[in-house]
Amino acid sequence: MGALTKRRESLIRSLAVRHGRKGSGYCLCDGPRASGEILKLRPDLVEQVILREGFEGDFDFPVSPDLLSAAEFDRIRNTVHSQGILLLVKRPEDTPEDEPVRTPFVLVLDRIADPGNFGTIVRTARAVGLSEIWLTDGTADAYSDKSIRSASGAQFALRIRRHGSLEHTLQLLKKQGFGRVYRTAPAAGANVFRENGLFDRSVIVLGNEGGGVGAIADSVDLNIPMPGDAESLNVAQAATVILFEYVRRTFPC
Amino acid sequence: MGALTKRRESLIRSLAVRHGRKGSGYCLCDGPRASGEILKLRPDLVEQVILREGFEGDFDFPVSPDLLSAAEFDRIRNTVHSQGILLLVKRPEDTPEDEPVRTPFVLVLDRIADPGNFGTIVRTARAVGLSEIWLTDGTADAYSDKSIRSASGAQFALRIRRHGSLEHTLQLLKKQGFGRVYRTAPAAGANVFRENGLFDRSVIVLGNEGGGVGAIADSVDLNIPMPGDAESLNVAQAATVILFEYVRRTFPC
Repeated sequence: MGALTKRRESLIRSLAVRHGRKGSGYCLCDGPRASGEILKLRPDLVEQVILREGFEGDFDFPVSPDLLSAAEFDRIRNTVHSQGILLLVKRPEDTPEDEPVRTPFVLVLDRIADPGNFGTIVRTARAVGLSEIWLTDGTADAYSDKSIRSASGAQFALRIRRHGSLEHTLQLLKKQGFGRVYRTAPAAGANVFRENGLFDRSVIVLGNEGGGVGAIADSVDLNIPMPGDAESLNVAQAATVILFEYVRRTFPC
Repeated sequence: MGALTKRRESLIRSLAVRHGRKGSGYCLCDGPRASGEILKLRPDLVEQVILREGFEGDFDFPVSPDLLSAAEFDRIRNTVHSQGILLLVKRPEDTPEDEPVRTPFVLVLDRIADPGNFGTIVRTARAVGLSEIWLTDGTADAYSDKSIRSASGAQFALRIRRHGSLEHTLQLLKKQGFGRVYRTAPAAGANVFRENGLFDRSVIVLGNEGGGVGAIADSVDLNIPMPGDAESLNVAQAATVILFEYVRRTFPC
């Protein structure tokens, strides 16, 4: 049973806040579910594995785990729901701006602030086989511990790209031939179930939970029909409808 | 500025736990968003409105609100996120077992335990105009404060039916001519995007987050195709795919 070095402990504490994560090059993963995914998907990024005494789990660790007493573990990781496994993980490398898009259409999350929504969308994107997602500034940190928990580590299965403002993001995409931009809109617009070419080198922008997507020059409004009386759909549910419409059209069986 | 009667205060405290809600005939709604919905949808059920001093919100109250000091309010409602409005609401009346189904197909939530998933599904059902949902025993309490917050009060826009075990539930539905039962299954089965008659006097059962739906005699497996490598879809996302497939087929435009 050991203890962490002061330096490592201080790094781990600092990663709980955005300011501390920024520039550190690391993120934290808490709990067996997301940890299991990261250990499977990106063992190369796992820098340290910290276990609380008594932790049981059938994992292959790429590095020799540090086993801490319950008191020591809880001292560095003071969360009620911590389940006795903590990974210190290198942040995946940023993707260069001109790196070719590798998906048939591009999903852009514009200032989606809630890590729960972010995580659900990433898990769903993974389920449909979309291997890349773009975020604008103002969207939740893809590698905060909340985002990692909420996505169950699915962000390590995808390429997450982040290149600044929505305007700059759309410019980059246009350069690569992704020029038709759909902007999800609550009341009217092209019907997600009828629009031809919706997933053909297009960009689909999902917006902030409160304010939706801002105005975009030359964009097409995209509407998810809602025959009921709800005012609007949660953004993660909207993403699910769009992503599975892609599945429906693309994978006939 | 007043105080609640001891009796009322004790009722409100007791409603925070399932045991206390059971048989009390009441539920609690916390926060402006869900409260606004309930005040709009079912003002007849609102028994008492409790406001913290300084609360600002533009609502029509069916009863004269009780205004409490911040200290008094926080004493009875000790949650960090409470936003200064609390409704004491009569639980909607139970629906008799033989009450005719009023939807073209029936969505059954079988032991869906998480109030967050429950709430998301209810909100989505409301968005697509499904006016009735069935729950089996073991599903989250539709009227716990967590469920109400998560659904933003949408359960008051629908009829929520609960008639015991899954087996008994399916027997009741069969009597009303809803005999074809679909059981969502992760790996194989009828394709949700291709199955004819999927929404035609059928029953679609969504199962528990961990274990899925149990075995059902004479049921048809229903599959949501997932070309990616995720093991299975979150149950709320699965519900969203199914409910919007219903919209896609039913409301051409």
